[in-house]
Amino acid sequence: MKILVINCGSSSLKYQLIDMKNEMCLAQGLVERIGMDGSVLTQKVAGREKYIVKKEMKDHQDAIKLVLDTLVDEMNGVIKSVDEISSVGHRVVHGGEAYSSSVLIDEKVMKALEDCSKLAPLHNPPNIIGINACKALMPSTPMVAVFDTAFHQTMPEHAFIYPLPYELYEKNKIRKYGFHGTSHKYVSQMAAKMLNMDIKDLKIISCHLGNGASIAAIKGGKSIDTSMGFTPLAGLAMGTRSGDIDPAIITYMMEEMDLSANEVSNIINKRSGVLGISGLSSDFRDLGAAADTNKRAKLALDVFHYRIKTCISAYAGALGGVDCIIFTAGIGENSASSREACCEGLEFLGIKIDKEKNNIHGEAADISSIDSDVKILVIPTNEELMIARDTKEIVEFNK
Amino acid sequence: MKILVINCGSSSLKYQLIDMKNEMCLAQGLVERIGMDGSVLTQKVAGREKYIVKKEMKDHQDAIKLVLDTLVDEMNGVIKSVDEISSVGHRVVHGGEAYSSSVLIDEKVMKALEDCSKLAPLHNPPNIIGINACKALMPSTPMVAVFDTAFHQTMPEHAFIYPLPYELYEKNKIRKYGFHGTSHKYVSQMAAKMLNMDIKDLKIISCHLGNGASIAAIKGGKSIDTSMGFTPLAGLAMGTRSGDIDPAIITYMMEEMDLSANEVSNIINKRSGVLGISGLSSDFRDLGAAADTNKRAKLALDVFHYRIKTCISAYAGALGGVDCIIFTAGIGENSASSREACCEGLEFLGIKIDKEKNNIHGEAADISSIDSDVKILVIPTNEELMIARDTKEIVEFNK
Repeated sequence: MKILVINCGSSSLKYQLIDMKNEMCLAQGLVERIGMDGSVLTQKVAGREKYIVKKEMKDHQDAIKLVLDTLVDEMNGVIKSVDEISSVGHRVVHGGEAYSSSVLIDEKVMKALEDCSKLAPLHNPPNIIGINACKALMPSTPMVAVFDTAFHQTMPEHAFIYPLPYELYEKNKIRKYGFHGTSHKYVSQMAAKMLNMDIKDLKIISCHLGNGASIAAIKGGKSIDTSMGFTPLAGLAMGTRSGDIDPAIITYMMEEMDLSANEVSNIINKRSGVLGISGLSSDFRDLGAAADTNKRAKLALDVFHYRIKTCISAYAGALGGVDCIIFTAGIGENSASSREACCEGLEFLGIKIDKEKNNIHGEAADISSIDSDVKILVIPTNEELMIARDTKEIVEFNK
Repeated sequence: MKILVINCGSSSLKYQLIDMKNEMCLAQGLVERIGMDGSVLTQKVAGREKYIVKKEMKDHQDAIKLVLDTLVDEMNGVIKSVDEISSVGHRVVHGGEAYSSSVLIDEKVMKALEDCSKLAPLHNPPNIIGINACKALMPSTPMVAVFDTAFHQTMPEHAFIYPLPYELYEKNKIRKYGFHGTSHKYVSQMAAKMLNMDIKDLKIISCHLGNGASIAAIKGGKSIDTSMGFTPLAGLAMGTRSGDIDPAIITYMMEEMDLSANEVSNIINKRSGVLGISGLSSDFRDLGAAADTNKRAKLALDVFHYRIKTCISAYAGALGGVDCIIFTAGIGENSASSREACCEGLEFLGIKIDKEKNNIHGEAADISSIDSDVKILVIPTNEELMIARDTKEIVEFNK
């Protein structure tokens, strides 16, 4: 059983073909500049040179056509026929309150995705275009939608309702949704395996730290709170996003600096976070390299780490204790110094990193010291595999 | 040494006359509807009936004149001459970054207060009017400004800098200031006394829970973080204020619901918080009474308590542990059920309330159970006394 995983952006598309027999990735690729000049596909297959196809792609259907052609290409492909693809899993950013788990795509689902587009105007429309393009090319192949929000639909009301007029929830659907759900779900399941424990018995705090960053509090395998909110802007300081700030700053900026809502939105989404504080870069490696001599680069990292540390502590409170902390995604998997800084001063919670063990990059490991009450794990995330697993399960269940 | 403490609002004024020999309040009063029809002064003196004066007061100078007349009134007063008032302490909401402690008022200070008015447009202007009115009537009496923000000026940069473009801090002074500082300072000093310990050795989390609510993390007597921010809107859910929400909700509301910045500001300041969730009341007693039968009243309280609980946990992380939690202000002093709900599930931090001891209202008490690692204290706040103490100290120092 081979599953194609598709993640569509507005002008790009990522894909992986995964063989579910052994959960191996047969091929992965990226299509860029869809509908623009210079559109290009790059495919990687283990043990082979990168394969690059430069070809005009006027829309996502052209892109997916090229993906399929590349996968079956006699010289550079990995399968003989598109029929070998038993099903397709699509990453969809927003499932709203309609979906608390992945779902087989039918007309009703497509309608629900359209309804959620207002909540994720940048993300859901390209996801929908990708699904339609796939359906046109592979009309009889079952397809599954896997939502970034679904895992967090188990949050209790006191965590997802904002202290705002309740009508804003009822009529305008303004509530906390949370994102990165597929990643938090994957690494929390992996953690239970690594610890050889039933996930039902674990209180886990999962830190997905990339250019976008979020933390989830996971009790018995279920998300009970998470730092992103109505949108992926909320919570931690990120590469370019502000995370939580006094909401009155928004209206103050508009009135005092004579900015439109759109201009302020642009500032807090694209010019804030560690880029905004440092004035230097949104890339944490740049900041790490500069921190010794550049005060604002150091300050940006300090703010980033401080907010993670206090969020971990807050979620220990939400969970009534913590058994396991997971670091994942770009920074979480690769930055030993960030992991150390995030845990510094949390010894009173029984959180203690082993500096030797922490000296690893991009591999799964237990980095807790021998006398740490809390297990601290590094787990590379694999959203594509999680999507493939969900797709397999749902397609088999619906057979 | 008798000190007059003045707290000026836009159309009201609160005052206390405190005898510093024994720190007793000789008289306290409230002037309402200044500059409006039906202006009235109400004065309370221990052991006497309330004294009410209905008299036209066209401005704050009229109001302060009446306060002084009332204090020296032959029948209803408490002093013989205004000369007995050795100094005046003024509550001022915003001291910006200029003041990290209380200060003797001179021309330079008045200029700085004017500069801060932009940051607290509702509060600083009436505070300034009150000071000027007092100076006109008592030109030779020393006066001290005591700021709501000053106590929090010890916060480290990583706590007060927002993940926003740094220029917003440098040019527009947008940062976390924090409020309720006089109250947090007072109760933390009282806590050290009650515990018979040096405040330098204590990690304290102080919860000021009134219609406005904030929490402070206090290490060795110094505030290192607090939940209010650039304005008093931020942080916890409050009576009518939203506290922290995804900042993107502000711009979403403006664009989707076609609201102005001012309209949204009005909603998040005056129609949100527990009033917004419940649709019932901003008064926590009303919600407590309704919670058994009214789901949204219960939800409002659940959200309020959950945010306090996670904030306490977050600040334990900021402090690297916690020795003492203080509950103060209206709800903190009077609601046993709220105190219990705020601490529920925090046993893993060594926080354990004694239900019997917790059954008190409006009095100082240690309510921690005998096996609680963390001392949990109820301490009635007394901002007026704190202002009087600061005033005494500063006037004596400057003699």
